[in-house]
Amino acid sequence: MTLTDDWFTEICPESGSAFSLQVKRKLHEERTPFQHIEILETTHFGTLMVIDGFIMLSDRDNFLYHEMMSHPVLFTHPAPERVLIVGGGDCGTLREVLRHPEIKQVTQVEIDERVTRLAERYFPELCEANDDPRATLLFADAIRWVKEAAPGSLDVIIVDSTDPVGPAEGLFSAKFYRDCMRALGDEGVLVHQSESPLIHQDLIRAMRGAMREAGFSRLQTILFPQPVYPSGWWSATMAGKGGPLNLFREEASRNKPFPTRYYNHAIHRAALAMPEFWGEKVDCSTLSR
Amino acid sequence: MTLTDDWFTEICPESGSAFSLQVKRKLHEERTPFQHIEILETTHFGTLMVIDGFIMLSDRDNFLYHEMMSHPVLFTHPAPERVLIVGGGDCGTLREVLRHPEIKQVTQVEIDERVTRLAERYFPELCEANDDPRATLLFADAIRWVKEAAPGSLDVIIVDSTDPVGPAEGLFSAKFYRDCMRALGDEGVLVHQSESPLIHQDLIRAMRGAMREAGFSRLQTILFPQPVYPSGWWSATMAGKGGPLNLFREEASRNKPFPTRYYNHAIHRAALAMPEFWGEKVDCSTLSR
Repeated sequence: MTLTDDWFTEICPESGSAFSLQVKRKLHEERTPFQHIEILETTHFGTLMVIDGFIMLSDRDNFLYHEMMSHPVLFTHPAPERVLIVGGGDCGTLREVLRHPEIKQVTQVEIDERVTRLAERYFPELCEANDDPRATLLFADAIRWVKEAAPGSLDVIIVDSTDPVGPAEGLFSAKFYRDCMRALGDEGVLVHQSESPLIHQDLIRAMRGAMREAGFSRLQTILFPQPVYPSGWWSATMAGKGGPLNLFREEASRNKPFPTRYYNHAIHRAALAMPEFWGEKVDCSTLSR
Repeated sequence: MTLTDDWFTEICPESGSAFSLQVKRKLHEERTPFQHIEILETTHFGTLMVIDGFIMLSDRDNFLYHEMMSHPVLFTHPAPERVLIVGGGDCGTLREVLRHPEIKQVTQVEIDERVTRLAERYFPELCEANDDPRATLLFADAIRWVKEAAPGSLDVIIVDSTDPVGPAEGLFSAKFYRDCMRALGDEGVLVHQSESPLIHQDLIRAMRGAMREAGFSRLQTILFPQPVYPSGWWSATMAGKGGPLNLFREEASRNKPFPTRYYNHAIHRAALAMPEFWGEKVDCSTLSR
C-alpha cells in the first residue's frame, strides 16, 4: 500500500519506521528564527502541530503526554509550589500544572514565541490557563535562564523539549542538568521527556548518566503510550535531590480535585513499572531501584 | 516527507493513520486458501509477517504481544494445566505458554497451516518449543473445535487472532464466547486480543458486552505497548468464570522460572491499571471493578 499526497509522514530514520496521518488541509506554515512550523488539519486526529518535520502534538492524543509530563512529577515532590517549564510552548503542560491548587507560581521559558502564538490560535483549549495569575510566560533561552536562576528557587523543573537535535540539543547535557540541580530546592525534582523506550534506549541511558553526573542521587523513568511519537511508546525521566522517586503522594493523587483523561493514581503506579529488558538495556546502575 | 518504494505501509482507515517500516527485500509471498501472506526483511525491525496487508509481527517487538497474551492469563488462573490457543499460528504465544512448567497440555488450533510453516522457516526462534511433547498443533476451524470440546476440559483459552475481519470475524461473538464458556472449567479464563485502547474503544466495548452476554461474570482488559500495531498501544481482554481477574498469583509471577523481556510481576500489575477515560468510553458497567 502506498500513501497518496494527502498524508503527512514523519520518518524515524534511527528505527527505519514511519508514522503518517491523513490530512484534510494545511492551516498554517511558517519559518521562525528557530524552526519550521506547520499546522495541519487531519481527518481523525484533529489539529496537528509539526516542527522541523517532527510531529509535536495532535488534538486527539496530546492528553497522554501532557498529563504524564506534569502530574507524576507534581505528586512525587512532597510540596511543590514553584515550577519551571522549559520549552512547553504549546502550553498543554502548563495547563495541567496549573490544575494543582497548591502551585503558587509557574514560569515557562520557551525559546520560540511563535509556538505559543500558534498554539493560542490553533490549540486554544491548551492555552485556556495562560492568563492564570500564577503563570509567567517568557520567551527566552532556558539554558541561560536556568543558569541565572537563584539557587534553591524552584521545586519542580519540567523539561518539555523537542528531540535532542536543533534548539533542544543543549538541554540533554550534564551541564544543563547541573544548573537545574543548583536552581532546585532540597526536595527538588526535574523531569525531562526521554523518547521511546524501544527505539531510544541509548539516549535514555545517556540522559540518566548525565543526570547522575550532574549530582542527582535519585532517578526514575516513567513509561506511557503516545501514539503520534515514534513507536507509540514514550518515556519521561525524573531526577531528584530528595527521597525516592518511585513513591508519590498517592492519597493526594487519588483525591485530585481536577479531571484528567489518562492520569490517575493507578496509572501513576503503572508508569513506574519497568520491563524486564530495562535492567540490561538501560539502567545498569542500582540508583533507580 | 513521502516514502519511497522500499517501505511497507499499513493504513488504518478507521483512524486515518498509517505505520510504515523500511524494507530491504521481500523474502516470500503466497496466497493460501484463507489469506495472503508476505514475509519481508526490514532494515531495523528484523523479519516481518504481513497477512492481508496487516502487520502480524516483527522480530523486534513481538515479545511484547506474545508475553502479554500468555503470562498474565496464566498467572491469573489459580492452577492452569490445560490450555487452548485459538489462532496463534506464528507459535510465539505457544512458546511463552510452554515456559510454564505447570502446564500439562496445550492444543493450538490454527486455521491456516501455512502461517505455521512459514513461521517455522522465517521465525524459527518462535517455533523452538513446537516439538514439546505437551503441545498439539492442529490446523482446523477453531470455532467448530471449541463447539465440540468436552465441557470443562480447559483451564485457559487464549484467542490469538487476527483483526475482526476475514477468517477471525466469528471469534469476536457471544456465540463463540459461549462455546468457550462451556469448554472451560470452573475457574476457567479466556483471553482475547482486543485491539487499540485509543482507536478501537467501540470494539472493546462490544467484545466485553459479548463476553458478558456469554455468561462470563468477570472481565479485565489489560494494556501494553505494541509498536507495529495501529497507535502502538494494544490490549487484551480476559473473561473469567471464577475469582476476580485483577488479582493474580503475584508471588509465583515474581519467582517465574523462565526469562522474559517485557513481562514481570510489576508489569502485570501495571497492565491492570485503567486510564481515566476507560469508565466513560469503554467500561460502562461495574463488572470489572
